[in-house]
Amino acid sequence: MAKKVILDVDTGIDDAMALSYAVRSPELEVIGITTCFGNTSVEEATRNTFQVLDYLEAEIPVAAGADKPLFRDHLKGKATRVHGENGIGDTAHPFPKREPIGQHAADFIVSKVKENPKQVTLILVGSLTNMATAIMKDPEIVHLVREVIIMGGAVTVPGNVTPAAEANIYTDPEAAEYVFRSGLPITLVGLDVTLKTLLPRKYLEIWRAKNTRLSNYMADITEHYMNAYLQFYTDIQGCGLHDPLAVAVAIDRTFVKTKPVHVQVDIEGTISLGRTVGDLRPKPAQPPNMEVCLEVDADRFLQHFVSRVV
Amino acid sequence: MAKKVILDVDTGIDDAMALSYAVRSPELEVIGITTCFGNTSVEEATRNTFQVLDYLEAEIPVAAGADKPLFRDHLKGKATRVHGENGIGDTAHPFPKREPIGQHAADFIVSKVKENPKQVTLILVGSLTNMATAIMKDPEIVHLVREVIIMGGAVTVPGNVTPAAEANIYTDPEAAEYVFRSGLPITLVGLDVTLKTLLPRKYLEIWRAKNTRLSNYMADITEHYMNAYLQFYTDIQGCGLHDPLAVAVAIDRTFVKTKPVHVQVDIEGTISLGRTVGDLRPKPAQPPNMEVCLEVDADRFLQHFVSRVV
Repeated sequence: MAKKVILDVDTGIDDAMALSYAVRSPELEVIGITTCFGNTSVEEATRNTFQVLDYLEAEIPVAAGADKPLFRDHLKGKATRVHGENGIGDTAHPFPKREPIGQHAADFIVSKVKENPKQVTLILVGSLTNMATAIMKDPEIVHLVREVIIMGGAVTVPGNVTPAAEANIYTDPEAAEYVFRSGLPITLVGLDVTLKTLLPRKYLEIWRAKNTRLSNYMADITEHYMNAYLQFYTDIQGCGLHDPLAVAVAIDRTFVKTKPVHVQVDIEGTISLGRTVGDLRPKPAQPPNMEVCLEVDADRFLQHFVSRVV
Repeated sequence: MAKKVILDVDTGIDDAMALSYAVRSPELEVIGITTCFGNTSVEEATRNTFQVLDYLEAEIPVAAGADKPLFRDHLKGKATRVHGENGIGDTAHPFPKREPIGQHAADFIVSKVKENPKQVTLILVGSLTNMATAIMKDPEIVHLVREVIIMGGAVTVPGNVTPAAEANIYTDPEAAEYVFRSGLPITLVGLDVTLKTLLPRKYLEIWRAKNTRLSNYMADITEHYMNAYLQFYTDIQGCGLHDPLAVAVAIDRTFVKTKPVHVQVDIEGTISLGRTVGDLRPKPAQPPNMEVCLEVDADRFLQHFVSRVV
């Protein structure tokens, strides 16, 4: 039986890839999508999500959520250099006129988890604001989710948005720390593994040759993303598959190797703000609060991803 | 011609090894030793330094320095679990009655650097309090030292005294940040490389078989150190050679491979306090302020160290 999953997204180009990958994977039943700010505004993330669903011809409820961090002004603007002004690479694809359900993302998560105790996998690939809010609304859900897979953090490697911090955690560090401390059964899919993945540039042509609405769309937005990568990584021929790897872990955990680690988010100052501080010492001071992905079978994952995504 | 070096130490067992290694290496001329708090109090560090010099039969001026961090109460107590109550493993060796010179360590550093412009290598293996104070006293020395080799920090690996921080930097984080920002030509020998070194336990027997005053002394204090290591690293058969590796880099830079990195010390909160935050992103935001050691030829270093130290 397919795993029931809710994806929380800030669509975003790799969010779009992750959505497509999840919806087109028979191992998963996407029972809902929640949106939040991050790569772009929550309004644009929601609109972009509907665009992807339109190309996927998928009818899945979408609940809009947080438009700002829990306790702060925005720490960073939209990720325009990576995802474009509109979140999906400034491509000219039309936006469908669909509306999110009336329920807030956090309420949607709470209700779905309680309707399906121990059955729902949450795949969180944006800021953790909606998840934190859901726990605040009903702490009981912590014990009722099946698992939580988070794309975020950089436990053993440098950050991206700052030398210390990865973007999804940095976007709302207090929300992330709240989620990390909650007791949820978390698997952290951070830059530790996602930067070891690469979608080679040749797939742009392969997808265009397929010439479906979906494949052309994915090629268009991904081309922007790959070009953006060249600003940050000299000579890279492709792009990392951050959010899709979180979906892959939901489908098949053997894509990664994990280690139980106690991780907290630095929410104190500025230099290390949003850093995921793991106690990786041989004898850690505190018991682990999550499984951190440290290795990935990048080749097998890539083959699996491209066999599904368009 | 031998390199003129000043060692700044908080002796300390691996400081004792580093002192012996330096004094017995013809490539180096140890023109002075400065002491500070850290592994133990500055008084004990000074006394322990004289003990090592006694066994080395070396007459080298010793200037005592800082007894506390620049701007804080002590962040941590003496490292009694690693270095014993007295800093040298609670061994019963006698303490010689010698006195440090009247000059403060920082003044000693300033005067020696100015007497020998562009000739003095500073090897700093304790807190960076004396170095920071020396720069405050006479900022000109920044341009007059030959090089500064610092055992401290953990740029790519976990800390030891906290999940984020290495002990020498944590001991006085503001001093470290001040030194890092000073413009000094720094090579950082951190846990990134020192934890890749290992002095195997068999050297205790080898040194005792040599049966000199020095070799028996080194065996006694090192045995304590190796036993202490077992508290933190299960099943390790030996000990890391932290401070000695800084001396090795002064002797022969090819023991390590370095990378220019911008590193700052987190001095803001508690979680990441004392962490050496390197901007290791492919396109860093700031120009490098030091060379960070990332690889070490541990076998060749070990052979060199044991050929010299006793």
